[in-house]
Order: sequence, then C-alpha cells, then structure tokens
Amino acid sequence: MTQATQESRIRNGINVDTLYGTLDAIKAQPDLAKFQFRATNRWIDGAHNRSTIQGFYAAGGDDTTRVEAFELDAGEPAILLGTDTGPNPAEYLLHALAACLTTSIVYVAAARKVQLTSVESTLTGDMDVRGALGVDDEPRNGFERIGVSFRVTGNAPEEKLREVVERAQKRSAVYDMVTNGVPVTVHVETD
Amino acid sequence: MTQATQESRIRNGINVDTLYGTLDAIKAQPDLAKFQFRATNRWIDGAHNRSTIQGFYAAGGDDTTRVEAFELDAGEPAILLGTDTGPNPAEYLLHALAACLTTSIVYVAAARKVQLTSVESTLTGDMDVRGALGVDDEPRNGFERIGVSFRVTGNAPEEKLREVVERAQKRSAVYDMVTNGVPVTVHVETD
Repeated sequence: MTQATQESRIRNGINVDTLYGTLDAIKAQPDLAKFQFRATNRWIDGAHNRSTIQGFYAAGGDDTTRVEAFELDAGEPAILLGTDTGPNPAEYLLHALAACLTTSIVYVAAARKVQLTSVESTLTGDMDVRGALGVDDEPRNGFERIGVSFRVTGNAPEEKLREVVERAQKRSAVYDMVTNGVPVTVHVETD
Repeated sequence: MTQATQESRIRNGINVDTLYGTLDAIKAQPDLAKFQFRATNRWIDGAHNRSTIQGFYAAGGDDTTRVEAFELDAGEPAILLGTDTGPNPAEYLLHALAACLTTSIVYVAAARKVQLTSVESTLTGDMDVRGALGVDDEPRNGFERIGVSFRVTGNAPEEKLREVVERAQKRSAVYDMVTNGVPVTVHVETD
C-alpha cells in the first residue's frame, strides 16, 4: 500500500477502513452490537452534583480501555438557586444533542467520501420554568422546542452536504432519544 | 432575625427564602418564567467536538452573570472510532438525566423540610449500535431503555424520602424531555 493510499483512508479524522471493518464485523455477528453505557452521579451540595463516566459494555465484554474516568460537574446559575458549578442539566442535554449530530455528520461524510472543512452549530431550548418549579401544571417541565442551526462546509456541492446532514439526523442516537423519548425506569433505595 | 433562624433557611445548600421568593415572583408575573438555554458546538477532528455554554435568556433579559464560558469536549472510545477525547454524546445524555433528577430531589427536599445526607445514582443505557451505525433499520438509534438506580438518605422516614424522589421525577426538566421527547427543528447552511 502506498503512502498516498494510506492517507486516503483517513477522512475527517476517521479511519474509513476501521469503520467498514466494524460494520462488516457487526453484520456477521449482530450480538457484537449490544452496548451499555453508564454514569454514576453523586450530590455534592445545593445544585452541584458530579457524574463519573468510565466503563461500558461493548462487543461482548466490559471495555477497559479508558485509563481515567471522565468527571462532569453540573450546577445552576444564581437565578435558579445555584452557584454556577457547571452547565445545568438542560444545557448538558443541548450539548449531548449537538455532539451527537456533529459526530454523525462527520462519520456519514467519511463514509460518503466527503472531506469536511467545518461543522458548527448553535442550539437553543425554550423553557417555561413554571413547569419544573411546580408553579403551574400547564407548561411542560422540559423544553417546549429545541432549535438546531448548522453551518457545514466541505469539498462537496451544497446538495451533497445537505444529504449528509439529513442522513446523520436519521442515524443520530441522541437525536432519536430527544425527539422520540426513551422508557426510563427509576429504582430507589433509602438506606 | 436570629442567627439560628438564618441558618435554618439554608437547607441542602439551597436558600429556601430565595426559592420561595422566586416562586412568588413567577406566580405574580408568569412572563419571568420564560427561559432560553443555548449551546454552540464546533467540530475539532474525528469524533472530537466541543460545546461552549455561557449566556442564556431568563426573567426578561439575557443573563450575563457567567464571567467564563463552560467548555465541554465530546468524543468516542476506540471501539466507536474515536480517541476518547471526552464522554460520548449518549453518556452526556445519561449525565444530564442524572444531574437533573438529583437537583430536583435536592430542591424538593429543601422545600419539604427534608435535610438530605446523600444522593447517589447509577444510570445505564442499553443500545444496539446497529441502528446508529446504519447496519440494520430495526433497532432504534438511541437507548432501548434507561435504568436509574437512586440511593437517597436524609433525616426523614423512608416513605417521605420516596415521596421526595417521586415528586422530583414529576418535575424534572430532563426526565420529561428524555421520556416524552421534544420537537427539534434542524436548519442547515452550507456556506
């Protein structure tokens, strides 16, 4: 394999050979596709709490490649009774959505031979906090709507770039969850 | 006001007087409850992208109390073609849910005169990645289900602690969004 060919296999920072190898392996053995992601969270004080994220289950076993855990601090601004120890949970949800759509765009573009030069987005979530604060039952607790505005550039005509974004939207895990909802089971222990 | 009385107004790190003042202000002037949270995101390379979170709209104007922006890095582990530059987007969603339920528990407990000693949770999200990778149309892209396991302790009987968690679940913004979904509009520019 020449150097030029090797280089052509990395697109948008994604190893396209590995990408296709992963897809082939999962097609041949669908059980490899069963993943479980995890987070543990601990209250610190007031609106300040911290999640620790490290291990996950993937491709038939527990993944141990992460040497260190990721730690994420949440908080609330003063107007919502916190001390700004981190983004608030609803802002984290906007970040999760932005990150997932962006990664999906990058992967889809890599598979479709589109070299991207930039992917930028702005997200807004409109909320009537009377719901979450329990002042009024009528407004819902969460965002009434989320707006996502992307600017995507790369070595492809506008139509192809738009197709990449559309396909990414159809395949994004967090977009699916945020638009369609997920069944959540809550278990409580008190000692 | 005596020192003892002042101290009794801070519960679980939440100023209960401010909490009730906020609720009264919003009841009197419901427009103050209109908030908009925001995030901007920028692709860096491969599965690595970064969100910046700072300003938001609240109580009739743009909030400017955050002197510095929060920056959040997302990534994917090697098995999902990344280099582990941060938690992945689905893990961020678990964190958003954990953080919101925990904060809701802390605020509800403060309002109900329950002094908490600990709030810990473990969240799991089960995903068949054939959906998000586009290998098979049958599995959904996101988590099939999310499990949340709380351990909550404080100066109240078990029944009261369970009531606090139930009420918090009914008022959590992210729990509402993750279980019921939110309308999302995506706009794309390509130059």
